[in-house]
Amino acid sequence: MICSNLEIKDGVLFFGGRSTVELANKYGTPIYVMDEKTVRKNCRTYLDAMRKYFGENAKPFYASKACSFKKIYNIVGSEGMGVDVVSVGEIYTAKVAGYDMKNVCFHSNSKNDYDIEFAIDNGVGCFVVDNIEELEAIDNFAAQKGIKQKILFRITPGIDTHTYEAVNTGKVDSKFGFPIETGAAMEITKIALTKKNIDLAGFHCHVGSQLFDSDVFVRSAEIMLKFIADVKNTLGYEAKELDLGGGYGVRYTEKDPVLNIEENIKQVAEYVKKLCKELNINEPAISMEPGRSIVADAGITLYKVGNVKRIEGYKNYVAIDGGMGDNPRYALYESEYTVVAADKSDEECNFTCDLVGRFCESGDIIQPSIKLPESVKRGDIIAVLTTGAYNYSMASNYNRIPKLPVIMVNGEEDYVAVKGETLEDIIRNDM
Amino acid sequence: MICSNLEIKDGVLFFGGRSTVELANKYGTPIYVMDEKTVRKNCRTYLDAMRKYFGENAKPFYASKACSFKKIYNIVGSEGMGVDVVSVGEIYTAKVAGYDMKNVCFHSNSKNDYDIEFAIDNGVGCFVVDNIEELEAIDNFAAQKGIKQKILFRITPGIDTHTYEAVNTGKVDSKFGFPIETGAAMEITKIALTKKNIDLAGFHCHVGSQLFDSDVFVRSAEIMLKFIADVKNTLGYEAKELDLGGGYGVRYTEKDPVLNIEENIKQVAEYVKKLCKELNINEPAISMEPGRSIVADAGITLYKVGNVKRIEGYKNYVAIDGGMGDNPRYALYESEYTVVAADKSDEECNFTCDLVGRFCESGDIIQPSIKLPESVKRGDIIAVLTTGAYNYSMASNYNRIPKLPVIMVNGEEDYVAVKGETLEDIIRNDM
Repeated sequence: MICSNLEIKDGVLFFGGRSTVELANKYGTPIYVMDEKTVRKNCRTYLDAMRKYFGENAKPFYASKACSFKKIYNIVGSEGMGVDVVSVGEIYTAKVAGYDMKNVCFHSNSKNDYDIEFAIDNGVGCFVVDNIEELEAIDNFAAQKGIKQKILFRITPGIDTHTYEAVNTGKVDSKFGFPIETGAAMEITKIALTKKNIDLAGFHCHVGSQLFDSDVFVRSAEIMLKFIADVKNTLGYEAKELDLGGGYGVRYTEKDPVLNIEENIKQVAEYVKKLCKELNINEPAISMEPGRSIVADAGITLYKVGNVKRIEGYKNYVAIDGGMGDNPRYALYESEYTVVAADKSDEECNFTCDLVGRFCESGDIIQPSIKLPESVKRGDIIAVLTTGAYNYSMASNYNRIPKLPVIMVNGEEDYVAVKGETLEDIIRNDM
Repeated sequence: MICSNLEIKDGVLFFGGRSTVELANKYGTPIYVMDEKTVRKNCRTYLDAMRKYFGENAKPFYASKACSFKKIYNIVGSEGMGVDVVSVGEIYTAKVAGYDMKNVCFHSNSKNDYDIEFAIDNGVGCFVVDNIEELEAIDNFAAQKGIKQKILFRITPGIDTHTYEAVNTGKVDSKFGFPIETGAAMEITKIALTKKNIDLAGFHCHVGSQLFDSDVFVRSAEIMLKFIADVKNTLGYEAKELDLGGGYGVRYTEKDPVLNIEENIKQVAEYVKKLCKELNINEPAISMEPGRSIVADAGITLYKVGNVKRIEGYKNYVAIDGGMGDNPRYALYESEYTVVAADKSDEECNFTCDLVGRFCESGDIIQPSIKLPESVKRGDIIAVLTTGAYNYSMASNYNRIPKLPVIMVNGEEDYVAVKGETLEDIIRNDM
């Protein structure tokens, strides 16, 4: 299977050591299932490798936009991860969960005054500042509150990672950050150093998503360290922190490579040490921001089949009781997923079909051209794997369909981490 | 302007006769604004034309997936429209709003047992049956409840409308319905006539979305009427109802043609009358299912600018306080929209930029390559037009950003139709 938390016993798919059929029977379908142990294991991979190779000042921040609810902040917090947030909603969730706000880093390319004041009032540790309007606003609010706000600048290093356009954020032409190439990054640094209520700790970059090439992080570290050296030489300011962003890929299908994150971090760390010496700068404290690679393989979605349509001479369709409302990623990006008939995992899969959703739209496809057993029929349980990232977090109420619950498994234990929405939830705000 | 409910006075955009700047100041941003008068006018266009040309038995059903909340069911209901629903959530919303359930038609390609029982228990007037599994389940539940359930069959007439793939639902290869071409449509009709608790009233088709070519409805009517005649000759059953679906296009930009719906319906009606005579069948009661064309131009979205990024030699970005969470249609379909600087509507628009959202994703674009005034800056109000359909209804909580309120204007009056979500709403189901 594509991840070690999956196995097949007597034709049934097990996830996190638990029978998916039993979980579907206990909680109904459709449901998201997440494995707490896998989330913790993924956190430790980053924590251990970063401490080992970058040193004790290094820190991974969980990019919680990948999957945000109270319990997830408890889990990653208890492991010692920092967290990234991108909105007041994520700040509030982390806060209510009891997460230490000092370890929260606030992203977003378009923070309004309300966002900025809310974050300062709640003691958010660091802002990743995206634009000059934001810098001015933070400086003003920090002055009002009588504090000095720690920030990093989001810098666009100008790397084209050849990943899908929509998740490629590090090139010069981006809605995010300040490009080095145009001089904007140097200019904003100069301005920040004049701001009395701004504590510029260093720089941040993020070059893309679903990356498997270790070279990408080496290359962005190179550009960013050279920029740090350039800033030192030009402005006499030396950055204390460098955040290299996130983006490590996960395995959605068997075609995706197995990434050795520890080895990858080791290579980046060796390069950083070497280059800092060459550039005659102090080695900055390194941060990274894994999101997808913390939660994606810690989640699956369980559905039931509604009908099987065999259109002779054309195509076959298997329709389920969920779809683009709970997983819009094929509709948005044509993302690939692995699909398993959870209660027929030992049957041969010779039936080629599109796995489609129940939403009233032709584009509501979970995955085209998959193989399922010939015997697939109404009521069968279907598992879609690697749905822990950007499924629950991107869910809509399209067609007024309530959001699914998130069921967490942890060895023998299972519990509801997020309750499923009710019909009352659906109409709660209707006047 | 692209719709008659829009005008510019002293540099300010007015919508439904109301200043968008005053509405933004009163309710804050971002907000959806809808004009009740436009919704009613759009309903009457269909009601009047269908009664006039198809006769008193004809009925338009509002396809409420386009925009579903309690108040909208009150509005369309008071005009005399039927409504289409696609889920228990939409049935429940209509019911709680006091809508007459006899006039509700239940679509969806993947209804599970819970959906079917809920709809029968709530007295839903008609099911549009998509597949044989559903037919069997309805027959069983209807038998249990001691009723005969009225249904239509969803038939795929096999028309390629050359619209965008994701909204093109009438071709043979579709997740929806029974194709005529393969014999599946005739076969299921034969089966239905043997079911004791099924009242087959006729047939339904839906060939696509955002259609401007009147010929499409004439062509689908032709195919469906020939099928009805074929069924009559083969099985001795004559359909009493024919639902031609929805799909009339709306004007998102000046490039989109102005569609004369009345004239279009007249053409279809004349053709239907003529062909029924030729085929020697009774003229069935005709239904249509407008969704987008009832609400799209009855809605706009108001945002505020967060920052303006001028990347020399590359591109300009204007970032707002909303984005793909409240309007995912560019991310999903590259849909076009018209964008107006609401408080600077008389300034020349020479500044080419991408209007991007606040969501943490490069693909979060509302509209690329638009023209705004050179003076655009943080705090300016931006209006995106024709957002009444598939914006609120497709909204997510991506990035844990609360859903926007829907503000309704009705002449001098304005009121909250849907409250904006709060931070408490965001964490309500987190354990």
